[in-house]
Amino acid sequence: MNVSIINIGDELLIGQVVNTNASTMSKMLVAAGMDVKETAVIADDRDAILSSLSRCLATTDAVLITGGLGPTKDDITKKVLCEFFDSHLVENAEALNNVKRIFEARGYELTPINRQQAWVPECCTMVNNVLGTAPCMWFEQNGKVVVSMPGVPFEMENLMRTEIVPRLQQHFRTGHIINKNLLVQGIGESFLSDLIEPWELALPKTIRLAYLPQAGMVKLRLTARGADRDLLQKQIADAVSSLYPIAGRYIVGEDCETLPELVHHAMTTSGHTLATAESCTGGAIASRLTALSGASAYFRGGIVAYSNDVKESALGVQHTVLEQYGAVSEETVRQMAEGARLRLGADYAIATTGIAGPTGGTPDKPVGTVWIAVAGPDGTETRLKKFGDDRLRTIDRTCNEAFAMLINVLNRK
Amino acid sequence: MNVSIINIGDELLIGQVVNTNASTMSKMLVAAGMDVKETAVIADDRDAILSSLSRCLATTDAVLITGGLGPTKDDITKKVLCEFFDSHLVENAEALNNVKRIFEARGYELTPINRQQAWVPECCTMVNNVLGTAPCMWFEQNGKVVVSMPGVPFEMENLMRTEIVPRLQQHFRTGHIINKNLLVQGIGESFLSDLIEPWELALPKTIRLAYLPQAGMVKLRLTARGADRDLLQKQIADAVSSLYPIAGRYIVGEDCETLPELVHHAMTTSGHTLATAESCTGGAIASRLTALSGASAYFRGGIVAYSNDVKESALGVQHTVLEQYGAVSEETVRQMAEGARLRLGADYAIATTGIAGPTGGTPDKPVGTVWIAVAGPDGTETRLKKFGDDRLRTIDRTCNEAFAMLINVLNRK
Repeated sequence: MNVSIINIGDELLIGQVVNTNASTMSKMLVAAGMDVKETAVIADDRDAILSSLSRCLATTDAVLITGGLGPTKDDITKKVLCEFFDSHLVENAEALNNVKRIFEARGYELTPINRQQAWVPECCTMVNNVLGTAPCMWFEQNGKVVVSMPGVPFEMENLMRTEIVPRLQQHFRTGHIINKNLLVQGIGESFLSDLIEPWELALPKTIRLAYLPQAGMVKLRLTARGADRDLLQKQIADAVSSLYPIAGRYIVGEDCETLPELVHHAMTTSGHTLATAESCTGGAIASRLTALSGASAYFRGGIVAYSNDVKESALGVQHTVLEQYGAVSEETVRQMAEGARLRLGADYAIATTGIAGPTGGTPDKPVGTVWIAVAGPDGTETRLKKFGDDRLRTIDRTCNEAFAMLINVLNRK
Repeated sequence: MNVSIINIGDELLIGQVVNTNASTMSKMLVAAGMDVKETAVIADDRDAILSSLSRCLATTDAVLITGGLGPTKDDITKKVLCEFFDSHLVENAEALNNVKRIFEARGYELTPINRQQAWVPECCTMVNNVLGTAPCMWFEQNGKVVVSMPGVPFEMENLMRTEIVPRLQQHFRTGHIINKNLLVQGIGESFLSDLIEPWELALPKTIRLAYLPQAGMVKLRLTARGADRDLLQKQIADAVSSLYPIAGRYIVGEDCETLPELVHHAMTTSGHTLATAESCTGGAIASRLTALSGASAYFRGGIVAYSNDVKESALGVQHTVLEQYGAVSEETVRQMAEGARLRLGADYAIATTGIAGPTGGTPDKPVGTVWIAVAGPDGTETRLKKFGDDRLRTIDRTCNEAFAMLINVLNRK
């Protein structure tokens, strides 16, 4: 059973607002075993809405529409839906009660323009939007379904979770779906695909494989779909276990979306503490970990040692080492990691130093040269990487490389 | 002249990756004076690609496609483009050199599968993708343009900025476009629009105003389009100077895209140095500044003081202060800022401490409570903010609030 999504809104088309609704909706639909065939962003424009709706209804079983339901003039979705379904607007008692309830709760007076929120096409089934005044409307035509809901993310999300997804599953009697993520690091996408091609070709027809590259790593996603949930579980488990002998040395973790999440999970469960000493990543490693709720359980703190004398004063890197080997060197990154571990009182410490560029490169240390260290109770590991000229990309890849190094150290414990 | 965007990729359709490409591209196109009519996300699927391409090419002047150009089996965009344009794949020397250059730079050996990256439809014009191995292909048909480029955001962004947008402007003679950004902070979008409505209504027809809200601030973009460049320049200058008497107290800067850029520019030109002491922002302030090339000219370093004893040991916050007032307090944030300024040897220091949530709130200090301080040669300023429950949003807003505070302090010098 497949679905298409139409997000209506000028603000999305000019790039003023990133369209997170499409991915939020897709995640929920896919997790519920439905295929999302297309998502389209269009303007609050009659012709655009009509043509997209006809097209999507012709190619998919259900069309989910967000946006264009506000009380202002430029919101025309309801009128256009009346035209499409050859219906007309009527005041819906249920919708009116909902609008009244919300206005009372907020202590506002109900104006005529807000009362219009309760007018909906006569042919639709109302789905109650407890979080907002805009209506959620369910239409059926020849067994297919069209849903129009508000574009306000938290209203849409609540409607999808509590009402729309369950109703779609019931209406279309969808099957089961199981997703499995494997985080692969230390091998490029193309080399990985060469390495595992025989394994990929031998996968059962029920399993689909997707390569999802991130900076310096690849997320492999296996998706199994079918009627027998237990069988799918087993097929996924078999596929994963048969992959380890082939590519196990590159698999840093399972069931996480990103390496920071993997580190977050590993540190939280291990009970160890972590500190950071960042030069070229400039705080990116610390900020990616602390962006995750609960980081305070293991993250003690970090030093962004951007200038050399901060490397000395805050991390205890020896002046002679900076003089002799330079800031971008194995000796420096080692002392940074060990200094952070010692001074911030952590079990483990990550350190980075490099030339993110685009300037600052030298013949023997070109832009993209990065040293990474992980210090722990059993000693310090260092790694030299040569990334490209792109500053942000080098920062991203350095972060992921450092996270993977830490995971490998923790896994060996 | 209008454009449609097609983002190809299963990972976008299942919601695993939020499609930021569409908004990034739309922003650039709109800023260059083009209208984005539709953006669509479709699967790596022959029929879907062919039908979307035909449809968009029929309704718009240019179609920009991203994704599906990787070396793996599931990437089929090039083959489908051959079919659409009735062409065939040939090895392109320019593309091959680019692939070779990148593999040599990274010290990898060129495998047959990577060499396939250099095979492109014979009928296209190659646009060099300096940041990656995937090709960027320019097609023309009856005066209309189709561009296929990689979906990797930083590759796409660089191609759009340096090649595609300028080529589109030239091909379609889009006329002159002048953009002027004003960063507005300390007033909500709706209050701002009420405040400046008379000014907005009095703008000449050649000028379009866009509200581009970011976390805790609004970017106002004036876009002037027309044939007479000098006239447009004058109209923009007049509009800006007439806005200052009305909203000048909220305008923190001009001609920057973001507050970090504004800080970066202000610090670089002032010749002063900066340090950071971050608790709730966890390194985000440091990383957003060091993401900008040249930050080493003014950024000395920072302390991510996530745990209380790091606040004491690394920043010199007094134990009694933490005991008496708590980590989230004016006294603590003041000592954090002054400690960072002193210990990292900087002219100015930014400090943040707060409860990002979703847990950790108390009745008197609910989730979203944040203290910010800016310490400088003339003393220390502190500010209390109450942000919402959303962790990442609170981090974003705290960063922007802190950047704006620093700018105001610098502007008063």
